[in-house]
Amino acid sequence: MRTTTGWLAGPNERTLRRATIHRRDLRDDDVAIRVDHCGVCHTDLHSLHGARDAALVPGHEFTGVVTETGPAVTRFAPGDAVAVGNIVDSCGECAMCRRGQENFCAAFPTLTYGGTDRHDGSPTLGAFSREYVVREDFAYRLPAGLDPAAAAPLLCAGITVWEPLQALGTGPGTRVAVAGLGGLGHLAVKFAVALGAETTVISRSDGKAADASRLGAHDLLVSTVPQQLAAARDRFDVVIDTIAVPHDLGPYLRLVALDGTLAQVGHLGTLTVEAMDLLVGRKKLTSAGSGGRPATAAMLDFCARHGITADVEAVPSARVNEVLDRLSAGDVRFRFVLDLADLDA
Amino acid sequence: MRTTTGWLAGPNERTLRRATIHRRDLRDDDVAIRVDHCGVCHTDLHSLHGARDAALVPGHEFTGVVTETGPAVTRFAPGDAVAVGNIVDSCGECAMCRRGQENFCAAFPTLTYGGTDRHDGSPTLGAFSREYVVREDFAYRLPAGLDPAAAAPLLCAGITVWEPLQALGTGPGTRVAVAGLGGLGHLAVKFAVALGAETTVISRSDGKAADASRLGAHDLLVSTVPQQLAAARDRFDVVIDTIAVPHDLGPYLRLVALDGTLAQVGHLGTLTVEAMDLLVGRKKLTSAGSGGRPATAAMLDFCARHGITADVEAVPSARVNEVLDRLSAGDVRFRFVLDLADLDA
Repeated sequence: MRTTTGWLAGPNERTLRRATIHRRDLRDDDVAIRVDHCGVCHTDLHSLHGARDAALVPGHEFTGVVTETGPAVTRFAPGDAVAVGNIVDSCGECAMCRRGQENFCAAFPTLTYGGTDRHDGSPTLGAFSREYVVREDFAYRLPAGLDPAAAAPLLCAGITVWEPLQALGTGPGTRVAVAGLGGLGHLAVKFAVALGAETTVISRSDGKAADASRLGAHDLLVSTVPQQLAAARDRFDVVIDTIAVPHDLGPYLRLVALDGTLAQVGHLGTLTVEAMDLLVGRKKLTSAGSGGRPATAAMLDFCARHGITADVEAVPSARVNEVLDRLSAGDVRFRFVLDLADLDA
Repeated sequence: MRTTTGWLAGPNERTLRRATIHRRDLRDDDVAIRVDHCGVCHTDLHSLHGARDAALVPGHEFTGVVTETGPAVTRFAPGDAVAVGNIVDSCGECAMCRRGQENFCAAFPTLTYGGTDRHDGSPTLGAFSREYVVREDFAYRLPAGLDPAAAAPLLCAGITVWEPLQALGTGPGTRVAVAGLGGLGHLAVKFAVALGAETTVISRSDGKAADASRLGAHDLLVSTVPQQLAAARDRFDVVIDTIAVPHDLGPYLRLVALDGTLAQVGHLGTLTVEAMDLLVGRKKLTSAGSGGRPATAAMLDFCARHGITADVEAVPSARVNEVLDRLSAGDVRFRFVLDLADLDA
């Protein structure tokens, strides 16, 4: 066993404390990574606040440097800059895995934390820690030129909005709206703009107008002004709804164009829709989360070519509890990233 | 005003009685149609059993013969065989109308019954009657070779499943499942098979196996056998769900393939889905109903080329109340059609 330091909450504890945690010895195809930066995701908050009978180390979108490799590792060497997202293994044999959609693995993918290792049955602990050990197949080369702190959120927030934008054929001529301008939303805007789509932000107030414009959006719709929604009826081929709380999908579906799609990625609970809101205009409702290995690699390549990273506030990891409180209160622009170097001290 | 005979229920009456009803004098672009056959749709039953403060004449999928034309009518002459569906007018100016999706008219299309005429504000009365008067643009030429009784249900049941099959790109190589084998379902199977799709029927029992096979389906899945559903996970690009009562969509969504779509066309109330059932596999939920003018004409042409009509039980219109009772009890294979010639007696 290897040991490292991380931020851990015991069963049903809601506060993270600094603790020594264990990592497995490297298997043949494992790499050990020094975690430098890890994004803070709403999932971390939900996991911390949910009922748990096991210890929790959150963190599933991170960048760092390879420090050691197992004997069968071929793609990485010590010193390589890498990134890891929210899944770290899958069965590799089901139809979804064979199609490169390991995130939809029929045997369920191994989550970066809160999951169970497929080989030794141990619980997985996340990347709010100084070291992570992972199969090389689930580590991605971090392209040169991407700031490692700002790139970390690409691995969860980024891929979650990248996959539906790609699956729905976003490109020049596509009209995309992004509802909610948080961690997921601001990356959806950057991607849609770089893909050449006509991109609109939907926000509760026009207070986000300057941000929307700076991110490259072409328009802002204020969702609390009924006239603006009415005027935008049937306007968007794709609506990426990143709003993180339960809300009425009707007003957003009515903005979708004929044969267009609303992708609900922000709130993953029970969704209720009126069939008529789908029927009139043959509109589609979908969801998305995480991504497969080929799509993740393609997204990182796209980000390198277009200079896209998240807008982040990087914070020493010792401030993790303060950061989670601020995220809970919505006080974030647009993603917190923990700098884990302070764990060396 | 013109008069004809039809089957009418007064406000909040649930039984139809023979009555004299009025039709408007022909406007310039109107045709008068002798209604020969009218299909009996679940909507007729819902309308009859729902609270109403006005008289009701149901019937919105019918065939007949043109008897008279307004002076500006160019497409029809007396003696022409025609068909009419569940919408008889639209604004003609909105983006949906301009795209030939009059069924999604932003100003709401005029329904064949239970609607309000756009010009004189009169309530529309349906085709359980011997004559109907309609704008020529909303009448379709009934192709030679299609039995008029069996063709009537194409105009509502048929187009309702035709539109999503077309919008979702059904053709050779597409794997289609049809859940429920009633009026909509049996036509969905015929269309999918004729479009070249690999077509499966999903039914609660294997009692429908012979019907499914006769309709051309390649397979039957029994939804009450969990092993059959489990084995068919992620199997279908398109699932047309024609089940007419509220039901859990989860088991049907799990049959949808990566990036595939479930079209719920049988039950048009509030739909509840778990986001995870959409997320895993990036599956889409949609709905459909009725159709635009170009699609309706294209469907009739397709039916003529492939010899497709509904499987119907044609009944003299005097038995309409018995027919509605049997429909309510599910005692129908696969669509009742009223023969309205008995109204001449």
